Amino acid sequence: IFPASQSISANAPFHLLPPQAKAIAILRRQGPLSRTEIADYTGYSRSTITTTINQLTDLGIIEEIGDGETSGGRRPRMLNFKADFGYVVGVDVGATSVDCAIADFSRHILASGSREIDVREGPEVTLTIIRDMVMEALKETGVSPEKIYGFGIGVPGPVDFAAGVLIAPPIMPGWNGYPIREFIRETFTQAVVVVDNDVNVMALGELRYGAGMLHENFIFVKVGTGIGAGIVAKGAIYRGADGCAGDIGHICADRSAPLCHWGNTGCLEATAGGPAIAARATEAMNAGKSAIFAKYAAQHNGILTAVDVGRAASEGDPVANQIIHESGRFIGEVLATLVNFFNPSMILIGGGVSNIGHQFLAAIRRGVLHRSLALSTRHLRIDISPMGAQ
Amino acid sequence: IFPASQSISANAPFHLLPPQAKAIAILRRQGPLSRTEIADYTGYSRSTITTTINQLTDLGIIEEIGDGETSGGRRPRMLNFKADFGYVVGVDVGATSVDCAIADFSRHILASGSREIDVREGPEVTLTIIRDMVMEALKETGVSPEKIYGFGIGVPGPVDFAAGVLIAPPIMPGWNGYPIREFIRETFTQAVVVVDNDVNVMALGELRYGAGMLHENFIFVKVGTGIGAGIVAKGAIYRGADGCAGDIGHICADRSAPLCHWGNTGCLEATAGGPAIAARATEAMNAGKSAIFAKYAAQHNGILTAVDVGRAASEGDPVANQIIHESGRFIGEVLATLVNFFNPSMILIGGGVSNIGHQFLAAIRRGVLHRSLALSTRHLRIDISPMGAQ
Repeated sequence: IFPASQSISANAPFHLLPPQAKAIAILRRQGPLSRTEIADYTGYSRSTITTTINQLTDLGIIEEIGDGETSGGRRPRMLNFKADFGYVVGVDVGATSVDCAIADFSRHILASGSREIDVREGPEVTLTIIRDMVMEALKETGVSPEKIYGFGIGVPGPVDFAAGVLIAPPIMPGWNGYPIREFIRETFTQAVVVVDNDVNVMALGELRYGAGMLHENFIFVKVGTGIGAGIVAKGAIYRGADGCAGDIGHICADRSAPLCHWGNTGCLEATAGGPAIAARATEAMNAGKSAIFAKYAAQHNGILTAVDVGRAASEGDPVANQIIHESGRFIGEVLATLVNFFNPSMILIGGGVSNIGHQFLAAIRRGVLHRSLALSTRHLRIDISPMGAQ
Repeated sequence: IFPASQSISANAPFHLLPPQAKAIAILRRQGPLSRTEIADYTGYSRSTITTTINQLTDLGIIEEIGDGETSGGRRPRMLNFKADFGYVVGVDVGATSVDCAIADFSRHILASGSREIDVREGPEVTLTIIRDMVMEALKETGVSPEKIYGFGIGVPGPVDFAAGVLIAPPIMPGWNGYPIREFIRETFTQAVVVVDNDVNVMALGELRYGAGMLHENFIFVKVGTGIGAGIVAKGAIYRGADGCAGDIGHICADRSAPLCHWGNTGCLEATAGGPAIAARATEAMNAGKSAIFAKYAAQHNGILTAVDVGRAASEGDPVANQIIHESGRFIGEVLATLVNFFNPSMILIGGGVSNIGHQFLAAIRRGVLHRSLALSTRHLRIDISPMGAQ
């Protein structure tokens, strides 16, 4: 059930013995199964499995669910993993909003919700909101907080994964080193608490259940207000020496710029992120260059977003096309450098700006292929993440 | 003795059982030891160790070397790893030269030599030269080819490490997919043959025995005629999806260039490598801008090298300083991007051009620090490799 990482197991309320963990794993994947089948699959003796099954039944992790089929003789009693043995909470902390979901161990979501926050108000305010959201949802679904065995939190900043704390997060003042795990475990006493960078969480989702399942080495790029990457190397999240690998938003994307347009840094995020796209569109609109922009802006108080630019481009607006093309090209050129260095088999683009659609993806692809060595791009796939466009 | 990688053990002439491998490892590191000490260190029972020691003594891998000390009672007989049980060959294939060395299992070098080649003559010509060099050296040292248990070859091109073949190497026509292992094992029938990219080999050397011993994630950058990187991620060489990770020489270093000066590509290698440095110096000399350049060129038929530029700079020549500064800056700016992405704890600079010395390193450091996020560079060390400057 629980990942094997040492830092996580140190944080776990109870430990499973190896035969217990194997029996659970096989029942989750293949169940329901008989005791004999579990012994066959796991390689443990029939007597070890009998003991193990008794232990797991006592713990409430598995249950008997009636008789199986047989070719003759006594029907074997079938066992199955109890998906409602416990529950997990997933939390996505953004700069201005937080999303929570509660799921059982079969990944069936019982409840989910979203709330506006300001992450700059600090960890205690934000984590209290999260705790209250989860407690309310648990009350509605009738689940006790002691049944929460896993609590995963994605945050928009660099994380020391082993310690479960943020390190000098640029947009999260007050969170540096704050003991998030301890806060959560005051209420959810049985939970393994995992804190990770939001883009790493997205990359992990793709690796386990998404487009990354068949890839050993890939990069997940989130393009939203910020731009960041989750890196999968040899089938696992790569975090770097200080936990801040993948922080590609601050790579200089426009070296030819004097000391750079948007945030006077020239960094990728300020050159090609959502606000940069919106700012260029607003500038073009104010200069009277796009009637379509004016139309969209009129729909929401004169404010244009990156997604409006995407809609305008799909209506054939040449200014919108130009903006998307430039933003995609900047991202593509930075990715070209990373492709030469890292030689991934796939790049997945996610995040709010990826909703812009096909023109954006096409511009990124052109940027990569234009600047990258043929060998590195021979088998390279570049796609919008189907799960990550949020 | 042999690395655990599957592709290598498939290629090994014999396999060691786990207690054998552990006993050898502990004797190589801590020996000489008694049987009791080996049992204590490895965690195996005294009887397993007795059997294991007998097997390894029969194989000639370890030997008894007299009595040890004791606090009373019978003195235990001490065992040691036999460094001359077998030998390994290391070969560094360059574009125009090949270096070979033969060492015993204690890394003591018995013989080494160098020969000029032209790698473009293809694998059969080159590998025949290598085979003959090694055979001659073995004859002189009295070692039989059957005693060569390891044969490592570094090549200047991308390698499919599992298959032991080059893949579309730009400067090695005819080598694509050539079965190097089979060629070597025709003569050295007992050898595990490992083929790898030369920069990966240099990075591995630093990881095992050099400046990388305490680093989990670092980048070794070779600056010579070409520019390439060996990547260490989580304590192991990282090769990428197609085996061509680290091919940073073709990263576009000068995006502002129209369609680029040197090899009309703008790539890092053509902008900042040895030939680019020499070409700029020659241009300055021909324009009469540096008397020191003219002096050095006169010493070898009018030809200037990158190392001459380094010498001129150390004599205070402003033109030489400018050239080195620019080259270092281009390399530093590309590395800045890689630092943000990969968050290594160290960058080591090796290769012939690194002999230029301190000004070059200083320019690279400035380039990285100027363009890289504070967090990624907080603990970052950038140094010339003491082993890699060749």
